[in-house]
Amino acid sequence: MTSDQFEYDAIGVIRTPFESPEGMPIQSAGTDATGTVELAESYAAGLQDLAEFSHCILLYHFHASDDDVSLTVEPFLDEAERGLFATRAPQRPNPIGLSVVEIDTVTDREITVNGVDVVDGTPLLDIKPFVPQFDAPDDVDAGWLETSQSAVRSKRADDRFC
Amino acid sequence: MTSDQFEYDAIGVIRTPFESPEGMPIQSAGTDATGTVELAESYAAGLQDLAEFSHCILLYHFHASDDDVSLTVEPFLDEAERGLFATRAPQRPNPIGLSVVEIDTVTDREITVNGVDVVDGTPLLDIKPFVPQFDAPDDVDAGWLETSQSAVRSKRADDRFC
Repeated sequence: MTSDQFEYDAIGVIRTPFESPEGMPIQSAGTDATGTVELAESYAAGLQDLAEFSHCILLYHFHASDDDVSLTVEPFLDEAERGLFATRAPQRPNPIGLSVVEIDTVTDREITVNGVDVVDGTPLLDIKPFVPQFDAPDDVDAGWLETSQSAVRSKRADDRFC
Repeated sequence: MTSDQFEYDAIGVIRTPFESPEGMPIQSAGTDATGTVELAESYAAGLQDLAEFSHCILLYHFHASDDDVSLTVEPFLDEAERGLFATRAPQRPNPIGLSVVEIDTVTDREITVNGVDVVDGTPLLDIKPFVPQFDAPDDVDAGWLETSQSAVRSKRADDRFC
């Protein structure tokens, strides 16, 4: 590896009701689905204090999408081509996904979460506590997604990024 | 690599006024500092449409922290040991950092951003648009950080994670 390459190991797996990307919610805001974050035994001690938080950020590897990256894409929520970095499409140069989910319960090495929007078996890379002062700025403009955010609950994924 | 290992390449670099972690803001909420996200030329086309958004999420590799991971840490904002996954400490099993920053301007292959909290030269992994409906849930409880969030503007990093 060069100094610009980084190798990460899965620290666990995300279990969800979604067997494939097709028909899945597009974002965690589009689902009430419950999932389980299963952390590898060796990292279990790191979950201490997480149950105090209402939400956490999951970082994971988009394992179910192909690696055919295009720098402009037609997202699920629009009919125009958009710059890849102005979308949340899973096919990215580094296919790292991010979901903010609600924490239901934290046990020994599992977190039950609400609002999962990933495929069953997704490899987990990191868990961070969600902190409004760090993660939720005021006066946000969501660009092309400003008008289509409300469609997220009715839209479902198709096979375009599989 | 096994199926649980993932290799990512830097897609650019984050330029900031902070030469080392010591004295740096702890989170983007603790700084008005301006930085520049320099994307590699080959990815420039992916920036289309991003200027419409007021904020973006940067994912990056914590290159300036050592790799001595402990599953409980004493964070900058507290005096108690906390579970690693209930903190934002940079020494993590997969040292991927996440900052929500304000977009000032987007040019050919550079984004000028406000509120950077990373060391100069940080390798960039991904840029995602910040979308409140996906990324900012309601009714959040920030656990042990609930009472110490307000200290973030006055606290600065020291050498504990270097």
